[in-house]
Parts: sequence; C-alpha cells; structure tokens
Amino acid sequence: MALNSPTPEALSKLSQIVGSENIFQDAETRDAYSRDETEDLSFLPDVVVKPGSTEEICKILKLASAERIPVTPRGGGTGLSGGSLPIKGGILLSLERLDKILEIDKNNLICVTQPAVTTQTLQEAVEAENLFYPVDPASRGTCAIGGNVAENSGGPRAAKYGVTKDYVLGLTAVLPSGEIIKTGGKLFKDVTGYNLTGIIVGSEGTLCVITEIILKLLPLPTCRTMLQIPFPDLESAAGMVSKILRAGIVPSALEFMERDAILAAKEQLGLTMGFDDAAAQLLIELDGTSQELIDSEVERIGELALENGALDVLLAESSAKQDELWKIRRSLGEAVKQCSIYKEEDTVVPRDKIPELLRRVKELCKQRNISSICYGHAGDGNIHVNLLKENLPDDVWERDLPDIVRELFAIVVDLGGSLTGEHGVGYVQRDYISIMKSDVEIALMRRLKDSFDPLGILNPGKIFPEIQET
Amino acid sequence: MALNSPTPEALSKLSQIVGSENIFQDAETRDAYSRDETEDLSFLPDVVVKPGSTEEICKILKLASAERIPVTPRGGGTGLSGGSLPIKGGILLSLERLDKILEIDKNNLICVTQPAVTTQTLQEAVEAENLFYPVDPASRGTCAIGGNVAENSGGPRAAKYGVTKDYVLGLTAVLPSGEIIKTGGKLFKDVTGYNLTGIIVGSEGTLCVITEIILKLLPLPTCRTMLQIPFPDLESAAGMVSKILRAGIVPSALEFMERDAILAAKEQLGLTMGFDDAAAQLLIELDGTSQELIDSEVERIGELALENGALDVLLAESSAKQDELWKIRRSLGEAVKQCSIYKEEDTVVPRDKIPELLRRVKELCKQRNISSICYGHAGDGNIHVNLLKENLPDDVWERDLPDIVRELFAIVVDLGGSLTGEHGVGYVQRDYISIMKSDVEIALMRRLKDSFDPLGILNPGKIFPEIQET
Repeated sequence: MALNSPTPEALSKLSQIVGSENIFQDAETRDAYSRDETEDLSFLPDVVVKPGSTEEICKILKLASAERIPVTPRGGGTGLSGGSLPIKGGILLSLERLDKILEIDKNNLICVTQPAVTTQTLQEAVEAENLFYPVDPASRGTCAIGGNVAENSGGPRAAKYGVTKDYVLGLTAVLPSGEIIKTGGKLFKDVTGYNLTGIIVGSEGTLCVITEIILKLLPLPTCRTMLQIPFPDLESAAGMVSKILRAGIVPSALEFMERDAILAAKEQLGLTMGFDDAAAQLLIELDGTSQELIDSEVERIGELALENGALDVLLAESSAKQDELWKIRRSLGEAVKQCSIYKEEDTVVPRDKIPELLRRVKELCKQRNISSICYGHAGDGNIHVNLLKENLPDDVWERDLPDIVRELFAIVVDLGGSLTGEHGVGYVQRDYISIMKSDVEIALMRRLKDSFDPLGILNPGKIFPEIQET
Repeated sequence: MALNSPTPEALSKLSQIVGSENIFQDAETRDAYSRDETEDLSFLPDVVVKPGSTEEICKILKLASAERIPVTPRGGGTGLSGGSLPIKGGILLSLERLDKILEIDKNNLICVTQPAVTTQTLQEAVEAENLFYPVDPASRGTCAIGGNVAENSGGPRAAKYGVTKDYVLGLTAVLPSGEIIKTGGKLFKDVTGYNLTGIIVGSEGTLCVITEIILKLLPLPTCRTMLQIPFPDLESAAGMVSKILRAGIVPSALEFMERDAILAAKEQLGLTMGFDDAAAQLLIELDGTSQELIDSEVERIGELALENGALDVLLAESSAKQDELWKIRRSLGEAVKQCSIYKEEDTVVPRDKIPELLRRVKELCKQRNISSICYGHAGDGNIHVNLLKENLPDDVWERDLPDIVRELFAIVVDLGGSLTGEHGVGYVQRDYISIMKSDVEIALMRRLKDSFDPLGILNPGKIFPEIQET
C-alpha cells in the first residue's frame, strides 16, 4: 500500500495536537533525527513530532492512519540496527517528552515508567531504594527504557538475570489505528488471553507505540566482585563459559574481549587494563547477598581458569576498580568505530559453540582478506563481530561485504545461533533474515504484523525484506 | 466458518497416518478423553488420535484443514479451565506418545524435550545431573510439560523463579495448516524477528501444536529450608508477603492456606500439619547455595512474622518434613473438591493487594450466602478462590454462580488483578474475559488467532466468547 508524505493540512493538524513548539520541519532537526548509532546511515523524516502524552500519540496515529503517513517511533536513538530510522520519511515520533518514572512500588518490587527515561536514570532511581533493575546495555547513559523494550535489549547480565523481556510485566501502548491497549499489570502471573506483552517486547516499534511500562525489580545485591582473566588464545578464553556453568556457577556477567578490542580502547581512547599482549581476556562479575559464597565462587573460577591456561587471575574487589574495567568494556564499541570503517554484527550461538564461532570467524576473515575484532557477552553466547574495512579499497569493501556477512550468518546458523542477540533486525539485517527463518515463519510474522498494523504505517521497512511491487 | 465431523474417508486417512493401533472411536476411549480436571465437564470427541511424530501431526493438521475438522490438542489432561476439552467434537489429538526427553545439555544448562514428558519426570531427570527446572505445578506427577507450555503454568516458585514462559527458549510447533515452525533455539538472547515463542507460550493450544521444547535450566540449589507459620487471621498472614519482599528476601515459595483448606485435607484425606485452629498458615520455602544466608533469612522472616502476630514459627529443616508439608499443600485442590460441589477461580492480584482481596471475597460470599476456601501462591499474588455450593439448592447455585463469579472478577480487576494467574481462560472463563480486556484488546487477540489459524480449526471455542452466528 502506498504511503504518503504529510500534506500541509496534516502538518497543521499535527501542530494542533502537540502544540507548535513540539513539531519541527527545519533541516537541522530533521537531520539530527535522521540517524541513530548504526554505522553511517541517514534518512530524513518529513517532520519531527514530540508528543507529550498517550492521548496525543493516539491522535497522531489516527491522523497518520487516515492519511497513510509512515510513523517511526524513536527513543534515545542509540540503536545499532537502524530500527528508529525513518527510512520511508513521514513522521518521526520522538517519545523524548515522556520521560518520567511514575512509581517505584516497594511493596511489590515493581517500577512503572514512561518510555523516554534512560536506563541508567531508572537503574539509579531504583538502586536508591535498594532495588535492582539488572538489564544493562552499554548505552545505558543515553538509551531509553522504551527503546530497550522495543528491541528486547540485553547487555552483559543476561546469563544470570535475563533480558528486557524477563522484566516487562505490563505495557500501555497505542496501536497504529490510534487505539490504546493495556497488557499485563503489576502481576507476576497472568494468563488471561494471549501474552501480548511477549510479542510487543522486541517488536522493534513495528507493532505499536509503547507509552508506559511496568517493570519487575529485584532486591539489590549487596556484594559484588569482579575478575579480570587474560588468556594466551581465544579458544581457551571462550571455552571457560561452559566450564563455569558446569561448576554450577552463573556469573552476573561473563564478558569476552579479544586483544585488538582492548588495544583499540587504549589507542583510540587512552584506556588501559593491563595484559595488553594477551590474546583474549575475560571479565567475570559475581554478585549476590553472601560474600562468603562469592569468595568460594571466585576461588573455583580461579582454579578452572588456571587449569584452562589463564595467564593470571586478577581480582577487582573495589568498586572503583570494577567501574574502571566496566568503563573499558563499555567503550569498546566506540573504540572500534574509530579504528576503521566497519560493520558490526551481533551474533549469538549456544554458549558452548563460542570457541568454534571465533575460530570460523577468523578463518572467514582470513579468506576474505579483512580483519575482525570480536568482543561481547560470552556468558550468554552473544558475540559482537566487527568486520573492519581498514585499507581495503572502497569498491572491494562495498562489493564483498554483503557476501561476507551472508557467510558469517551461515556459520552462526550452522552452529544453532541467531543473526542478532540484542541489536534487532531493524533496517540493516532485514535482507538476511531468510538465512535463519523459513518462508513459513516469515509469512507468519508478516501476518502478525498485519494483525497489529493492517495499513503498514508503523516503522515501515523494518525486520522484513522489502516486497518488490510489480 | 462451519466445522465438520470427520467423514469415514477422513477417518481412514487418519488411520493411515498414525496406524490403526493409534486411532480410537470406541465409547470408552472417547469418554476418557472427554474430560480434564475442570469440575465435571465432558465433551465427546469424534475420534481420539495418538500421533508418534511431528511429521504425523503435520499430516493430521493438513487433513483437518482441508476438511475443516476441529482439532483439540491434549497433554496430561490435568487442566483446570477446560482447555483440552473437545467442545466442538472432531479430532482429540493426544500427544501422549511424544514422551521422550531428547537431551540434557550440561554445557549450556538446557534441556530439549518432547511435550508429553511429565513435569516431575523432567524435574527428576535434570536433578540427577545437578540441574534444576523450577516450575512446579501441583499436578506435576501427571501434567505434561507441553501442557505447561500451552498454559504458561506457574506453581509456587514463581515469585523467585518465574513461570513456564521464563524457561522456554525455543519450540518446534505445527501450524493448523500443517506447516512446521521453529522458534528460538539453545539461545539466551535472540531478537531475529518477532518473539513467536512468547506468543505461543500460554496460547492454550489455540495457535499451533507444540512438538518439541527447549528449556533453560539452572544449577540445582544445594540448600533448602521451610517454615510453617500459623496466624490468627487471614490478613496478617497475607500481609507478610510485602513485609518479606521489603526486607529484600525473595523466598522460593510463599504459600497461603486458610483454615478450611487445611481442615479439608485433614477430613477428606487424613493429612494433618498442626495448628488446625489457626485462621491461616503460610508455608515459606527458602533455597540457595549458602546455608548461612538461608539461616539469616529464616531469622529475619521469623522476626517479621512474630511482629505481625504469628502464633508460632516452625522450622522444617529435614527434607522428609518438607515433603510432608508440600504433600499437604499439593493435596488441597483434591481435598476441597471432595467437600462440596465447587467452582474454583484462579485469581491473581498485585502482591500487596492480597489482604484486601481476601477481605472482599469473604464479604462477597457472606452477602451471597455461600462459603469459600482460599489458598494459593501468595508470593506471586495468585490466590485460588474456591466457591462452595454445600447445601445451597441446585437451582439457586446454578442461577447465582455466574453472577457471583462476575462479582469476584470485578473485585479482582478493581485491585489491578487478572482473572487467571496460571489455569488459563480455556472454556470455563471465556465468557468473563471482557470483564478485564477491552473490545480493542479482544479484537486484537482474535486477529492474532486468525494469523495462526485462519480456518479456526485448532482448539475452537476457547479463550474468546462465542460469536453468535446470525
């Protein structure tokens, strides 16, 4: 179905809905909202609209439905798959004014929030009440919790604490028709009808616009320790994951970084963590409410690491030292970005397949004469593979990259993995989805999309390959 | 769309698909599969079919689609909402032959299973490997894990460990068209496309037939302690939930039982736990890997209970004593059933609203001149309210019950709760769903149903009120 740019009349109606101070058509604003953190893509919206309430969003979507105007919702704009890029133009719906934490409910260990609160702001607000929201994407300082819900964000703590979907108890959302739905509630069990919450989380803004979120919280762990463990080769480091799990220990984070990622942080950002010459390093965080238990887990992990060839086992007990290590870990994406033109893929495999994934990625890159930098959340099998252009001629890079990505994804699927663990399909992975999903599965997902968005106005061009109109 | 009984030709084809030894038309078998554990309902299928593989299920569903024959999948037949009752006749698809655990993967803490394995068999198999599957419905000895997935079963450990949906990492399922889909994998993160796993779990056999399940496991807790705490009134007992959570303690189970439930177990089944005259009792289970930590939590809960008016705090440290208490707790449904004709509702409310729920349930029953017995999983707000007919004349009971149920649900919704926490809507709650869900939400759910099952052949007549055909 053809989509339209907003007419002058539609723009005037939009201005009446949100107020003239919350609608923008100037080139500078449109440009600012044409990008997210995904490589160097830019798609200009016709208009940027910043509603202040669920009701205003209803009116905007009713208008957009009536006029067939594409609407692309946007949270913090920190996405890595182009999910919030208005690739068909139309209305860029920025949720930034919905930025209030509505309630921290200590009786029920629940938080109710609007979507534009940053993850870090939410984490700090609940921590002040001795509560804990564990999902911790690297962009937590600027990403929006609503974006986390839309993308089903993960981060390093997924092995122990799960991902965003494991914390969303309920939602208020606006359908593309402008109708409001509520799902779930302050409820830890709820099977009245289909699990709409479950299908909306991770739907990348393609099914509805999320305007209120009910999150489960946990008691704040009182103890935390971190280990830095350098290894002489990638596979010994990656092989630790299964060994730790088999020992009955589930760390709150188990991060893998190869040498070039750590060197990039040093060279590009001046951050250093020691053992620069180790082929790979693990950062392992343990948390809980018993220091004695953590100490015994530290000891066991240390033994396992040395048996597995670790160069050393370094304990970071002070929170200052832990913060320093986390800062380096979180900076890797930015550091790699500054090294070279690159393409980041967000692969995930069964945890015991990480060594094989790394081996095959390196083989692939060698064959293709490019380099790669790998790091990520080994505790849950989620490895970010950065393919680097470096000195490759532009035309060779442009020509070969899609094939290299296809080959990478074929390896991932062969290992029982998935194309994306936490970044989403969005715009940049949409043409690869059929490597992993069957025609039957893609057709079913398209029907699900239609059941929410029959006119196809909401975040068009995402997740699914474009159907060539004939 | 009109549905048909199988023709003789269709029956002959079914027999070819599954083998003549796996298809049943005799009165006895049809009667046995006409019931589940939901009160005294019975709906006869035309034929009972017991396929032995995913491929046979594909063929059955292709045939059923072509001929518009209703198909009702069935696991252990222990449901409490009539979800597996073939209310439109047709094919009763018993999955009982798909009863193998396919893999216990210790490297990844994952189990792969067919759907007809009982929950207890699965629990015991993984426990033998020092692993833990925490979801623990009272019917665990006979319920099927596939039924648990279809119903998103809960049980007592949900407060700490979540419900079935929190453990399902992937599924193989057959669509009503006969096409196979695979969702997820041995993956702890996966955002490639919509979360189909999330919408299938809890869909009560109305969207597809689940034939293989990938489950997340945890390391087996090494320590477990249980407390029995009698209280002189319902509200003090129920009020403990928030007090314990606010103290930063999340018990692995926090069960509530009122006096009449415990007396029913004594009178009907000869089981006794002491403090028979207490108005209500809590069973609190704590588990973990540090006995020291559990001991400190026991002490803190004991203090809080005594401050809150507890009559005593009894420690059950031996596993024999714990098993005895759990046996009584699990027998309550059966015991209440033997007291009187009854109607069980599976209410769930925010945890701090349990005292108000109990107060208002008792008021309602007093006004309506009936009695009630309440017990359930207070740790997650899930209270089973049993309305008892006792000596009420049959016609008054029949006449008044729907109104009483409506009033009960109105209270639940007023408290921010849900009609069903773990039993499902199924057949018996379908006419009440609009008390909680808006027309927009129900219409959206119907469209979701259509996107999986456009012909409406799979488990028809469940979840949604019947549309009166004109």
